[in-house]
Amino acid sequence: MKLDKYAPIEWKFAKRCGPLKSSIIRDILKVTQRPEVISFAGGLPSPNTFPVEKMRAAFDYVLTTAGTTALQYGPTDGYPPLREFIAHSLSKNGATIHPDQIMMISGSQQGLDLLGKVLIDEGSKTLVENPSYLGAIQAFSVYEPHFVPVETDDHGLIPASVAARGEGARLVYALPNYQNPSGRTLTAKRRVELVEVCARMRIPLVEDDPYGTLCYRGEPLPTMLAMNPAGVIYMGTFSKVLTPGIRLGYVVAPRPLFSKLEQAKQAADLHTAQLTQMVVYEVIKDGFLDQHIPTIRTLYASQCNIMLDALSKYFPPGVTWTKPDGGMFIWVTLPKHIDSMALSTEALTHNVAFVPGSAFYVGTPETNTLRLSFVTVPAEKIYEGIERLGKLIAAKI
Amino acid sequence: MKLDKYAPIEWKFAKRCGPLKSSIIRDILKVTQRPEVISFAGGLPSPNTFPVEKMRAAFDYVLTTAGTTALQYGPTDGYPPLREFIAHSLSKNGATIHPDQIMMISGSQQGLDLLGKVLIDEGSKTLVENPSYLGAIQAFSVYEPHFVPVETDDHGLIPASVAARGEGARLVYALPNYQNPSGRTLTAKRRVELVEVCARMRIPLVEDDPYGTLCYRGEPLPTMLAMNPAGVIYMGTFSKVLTPGIRLGYVVAPRPLFSKLEQAKQAADLHTAQLTQMVVYEVIKDGFLDQHIPTIRTLYASQCNIMLDALSKYFPPGVTWTKPDGGMFIWVTLPKHIDSMALSTEALTHNVAFVPGSAFYVGTPETNTLRLSFVTVPAEKIYEGIERLGKLIAAKI
Repeated sequence: MKLDKYAPIEWKFAKRCGPLKSSIIRDILKVTQRPEVISFAGGLPSPNTFPVEKMRAAFDYVLTTAGTTALQYGPTDGYPPLREFIAHSLSKNGATIHPDQIMMISGSQQGLDLLGKVLIDEGSKTLVENPSYLGAIQAFSVYEPHFVPVETDDHGLIPASVAARGEGARLVYALPNYQNPSGRTLTAKRRVELVEVCARMRIPLVEDDPYGTLCYRGEPLPTMLAMNPAGVIYMGTFSKVLTPGIRLGYVVAPRPLFSKLEQAKQAADLHTAQLTQMVVYEVIKDGFLDQHIPTIRTLYASQCNIMLDALSKYFPPGVTWTKPDGGMFIWVTLPKHIDSMALSTEALTHNVAFVPGSAFYVGTPETNTLRLSFVTVPAEKIYEGIERLGKLIAAKI
Repeated sequence: MKLDKYAPIEWKFAKRCGPLKSSIIRDILKVTQRPEVISFAGGLPSPNTFPVEKMRAAFDYVLTTAGTTALQYGPTDGYPPLREFIAHSLSKNGATIHPDQIMMISGSQQGLDLLGKVLIDEGSKTLVENPSYLGAIQAFSVYEPHFVPVETDDHGLIPASVAARGEGARLVYALPNYQNPSGRTLTAKRRVELVEVCARMRIPLVEDDPYGTLCYRGEPLPTMLAMNPAGVIYMGTFSKVLTPGIRLGYVVAPRPLFSKLEQAKQAADLHTAQLTQMVVYEVIKDGFLDQHIPTIRTLYASQCNIMLDALSKYFPPGVTWTKPDGGMFIWVTLPKHIDSMALSTEALTHNVAFVPGSAFYVGTPETNTLRLSFVTVPAEKIYEGIERLGKLIAAKI
């Protein structure tokens, strides 16, 4: 058969795909596959924290005792015992979360896609922190929102900015704990204010909380979900406390929204793997995370302190950075005239990688910012990489 | 804290969610959880065919030998060795499929969602067989297409109908092998004609092929992918030949489209579980499917013959049905005046379930049709259920 006999397709893509491009982070990560590169660019959890043997044993147990159930199609909303476990663990600070508000999803990124699909029309006002999580900006962008940036400072999102800009918005997207990319934490007082502003303006508040339990200093602050379960959509994940490669997260949604999300999930991929959910339930049901998460905290806190130490040693005056109380990221602000995108290209030639800050803005980007991840790099490499970066920056001041 | 102090949200959903509703199939499946119900409604593969021990051993092996890699974030396009394996297995009939055209996805349902997202604008002409797979209709519908039904007969989709109605269409969606719901197979001659019509009209042709290897009579026909790899998007899955609960499928796409699909996949859920892909590769890499699939064929062919026998015994004159050469479904046509939706309600009170045909049409539904699945019901129950149904139908003639 002659295969070239047909004229090629002239591909016509949907308008919504205009803003879609490959994530700059994933592009940088490709370069950082080279072993000689010291990469602060990744957002990967440390594989040293993966409870591999515990997972292996749980897969073995579930497949031995309930193999055909685990490998068959399952319900769209998820595995009931796991949903009950999560509901119970979120029921605190006076709030009761019901299992029928918990939908299991294929990583919390999928929750962002489903929320965009269900809540955002073309031109819908959509409020996101400035800067905000790139994956959320990407997921929402295909639904063609009118992004409105919410102002932030060292204490996180500024609720008054939501009040000033939020009229008629379809949602406010917030990442209150150790935010990606800034590492900042929304204060307890502002959480209450934000919940009140959103409730008063009748705007659904999306609380994305991948890092909430990775707290290195002080106590975790209450969730906004607990303050108003009928108005807050909460997203959690097992990526940062167990392992990311299994792709398992959950969204907690008030019932009217839940039904729509469930229908959208069904159309998108039927359901999330039943086997994975049964295994995770098996791993965590007897309180494993209560012992395991502190070990992650200890490791990451130590990594964070090493990077903070390296920054104060090697970064020149005029450069500032956040001191996160948890999570995986430090946010650096250079003198205004230094463009971090150009610095990134230069740093890669010196085998050091980070993510330039401009990717994280829906408003006017602050081009003198950058994100550093501290969790996977060995101590001596942190010092070496930060020293190299410091020299490159110093040469521009 | 007083939790009821906030006014409730008045939820406003995106316009695209208007057509979203819970699948009638999944609604009927909920009823059929009752053990006394004889259900021909499901589309579930038989759990007797799941290679549970083989899967258990593979999970054990991968987690023992490459645990941290398997449990870490992975590439958006998928696990390279598995992509190579699939590309190789699809390279036949003179066509060469490259690994970089294969994207691993979370079940082939996700491919439908991604294709809709990337190819369909509001009002885009989208051609689907009449009747067609309900999951595809649902997945596409959220992107607000202008659905155009393509005529079909006992030999499958009629290519002249595409020629007549396809001008300017964004895609033609076809399920050529043992179609869900009709059980029909597109003839070899029509495959060539369809590929030619689509190429001439520059319309991307989506070939959805979940059942292609489940062939009970004759030889599998060539894929349309092999006839024109630059114009055909092919979708495959491990759900019907291994197990569905792991949620693993793939889409084969020409490179210009592939990049867009990859970006959409990244925004939708980052990537499909690396562990699952490594395990499936481990299971199939030495030719396991070549021995395993014939055992599924034998079982399903026997089930199919039993149902065909029961139908000829118990269904009254004036009722006709398809005699599938493979797959999982038989399509029944009742006398015109019998409404299968009303029959379904009545049958459920007699503890027999099936799916009324009208759910599968984007054009005017033929309300006298229904879908029967034969794969999971024991022989004596097939006879019993079909006898009961036959009596209900006979009473209306």
